[in-house]
Amino acid sequence: MTELPTHVDIRDVSLRDGLQIEDPIPLSAKIKLLAAVAATGVREMEATAFVSPSKVPALADAAELAAQLHRFDHIEFSALVASPNGAKRAIAAGLHSIEYVVSAADGHSRSNVGRSTAEATALIAEIVAIAHDSGVSVEVIVATAWDCPFDGPTPPQRVLDIVTESVNRDVDRLAIADTIGTTTPRRVSDLIAIVRPLIGDTPLGAHFHNTRGAGLASAYAAVSAGVTRLDASVGGLGGCPFAPGASGNIATEDLVYLLRDSGIHVDVDLQAAIAAARVAQDVVGHDLPSSLLRAGDRILGE
Amino acid sequence: MTELPTHVDIRDVSLRDGLQIEDPIPLSAKIKLLAAVAATGVREMEATAFVSPSKVPALADAAELAAQLHRFDHIEFSALVASPNGAKRAIAAGLHSIEYVVSAADGHSRSNVGRSTAEATALIAEIVAIAHDSGVSVEVIVATAWDCPFDGPTPPQRVLDIVTESVNRDVDRLAIADTIGTTTPRRVSDLIAIVRPLIGDTPLGAHFHNTRGAGLASAYAAVSAGVTRLDASVGGLGGCPFAPGASGNIATEDLVYLLRDSGIHVDVDLQAAIAAARVAQDVVGHDLPSSLLRAGDRILGE
Repeated sequence: MTELPTHVDIRDVSLRDGLQIEDPIPLSAKIKLLAAVAATGVREMEATAFVSPSKVPALADAAELAAQLHRFDHIEFSALVASPNGAKRAIAAGLHSIEYVVSAADGHSRSNVGRSTAEATALIAEIVAIAHDSGVSVEVIVATAWDCPFDGPTPPQRVLDIVTESVNRDVDRLAIADTIGTTTPRRVSDLIAIVRPLIGDTPLGAHFHNTRGAGLASAYAAVSAGVTRLDASVGGLGGCPFAPGASGNIATEDLVYLLRDSGIHVDVDLQAAIAAARVAQDVVGHDLPSSLLRAGDRILGE
Repeated sequence: MTELPTHVDIRDVSLRDGLQIEDPIPLSAKIKLLAAVAATGVREMEATAFVSPSKVPALADAAELAAQLHRFDHIEFSALVASPNGAKRAIAAGLHSIEYVVSAADGHSRSNVGRSTAEATALIAEIVAIAHDSGVSVEVIVATAWDCPFDGPTPPQRVLDIVTESVNRDVDRLAIADTIGTTTPRRVSDLIAIVRPLIGDTPLGAHFHNTRGAGLASAYAAVSAGVTRLDASVGGLGGCPFAPGASGNIATEDLVYLLRDSGIHVDVDLQAAIAAARVAQDVVGHDLPSSLLRAGDRILGE
């Protein structure tokens, strides 16, 4: 029998990964969604990204959104960055936590940020220095950790190289991301098994999309392999505009259901997450792929 | 690291569980779907059910369909029955394999067949005698093995009682079914762990619906716990008309994708399963929930 953790931290990524592929919505609609997500009890949220407004118009209001975050003081907000300049902008906007994304595949890395994986990896040291000098924590997210839409399967050593550099540069957290929703539980277990020995006590998170139906299976495999931090979005909002075929993140409410019934504590209330998913559908104006949004909770009985 | 089996048998249930909740379709459409599923390489199919035509009008043509099955002689066909009379009808129609469903929850059992679980369990001996006298094999499927839409969570002992009686009566195979799509991987592992010691060498299958998004996660948990037979339907067709809230079976193509990428051999070809799912959408006239149908296979690379 696999030894499961007693608690898993869910980071809600609705506002960033959830919205970045959508048509831009007004700041007021984002605040409405943010408030609904905050009401779930979640402790961490990825609020936005400080990247090129022309590449991600849906997040062009990053600084304006950041100026509103003080209203939700029980949440630890983070923002995604893709360069030292983005890190500086995020910090100037008041964020206390940033995520620096490095794609393990050259094809996705060049498409996403115009740099090879090696070039993007080489910037970790500078971004950590910028952040730590301001007392800001840094997570490195390894994107396309299993597959790239351009290059095919990612050789695990490419992931390990980013992980090693991150640990050497004292990043505060690491995450591995299935950017295009292709991985499956065995591949998740296998990759985590070779990552964990390299990272010491650095917290390790995982990020899955449900594009091929295996998102929750992969999340459970990650948790079974010792991961205690998972990204999710209410309703299963989300996708990556630079990764053909990518679709929604795993839905927060579906994940909460699965973890709760596996005896794992999470801070997110299931009914509040379903309510937030309804708000998400409302603000983006279309149906979302969440299962619990349709089926609801089971009869819990005794 | 979990020890996975090298091979898993998929039984396609598109024609029975997949269609029973749909409006009736012509026999010619069923044969078209059957031919598409047969072309996937699958070895076993649940073709129909010999139950009350008034309760399941979509399967009222069971005998007519059975008369066509000889055209697909590389497939082992089975039919579901809910009574000794149904078993006799299935055998008279030429089936060599029947499944007798016993609901572990009284609420579902009474709703489904008008008998308590104990009354339905007591019929196992008679049905096995009818079948074995004709050289026909019998699988007992334990329905609502985790939860009942009326009674809530199913006490595991109710499942074990059916399993024990089945083994004592020499059934040929057993399966446990998440009839309403509420279970999650940990509950699957836990139930299988207490079922397996009771069944000796009797093959054990599992049957999942994806109603709450955890169908594939549960299937992988079952395989990780030693199950080597899984039910699925192309496109994720399916549901149970007597179980409020139930929705599609796990999609054959999504399952094949997950198992293949876990290094587990299956007889079903992925592209042929996707093609069959398209046929399924065509014959039922609406979209189906399969993920691979939308996203397609990943880039396999080297």
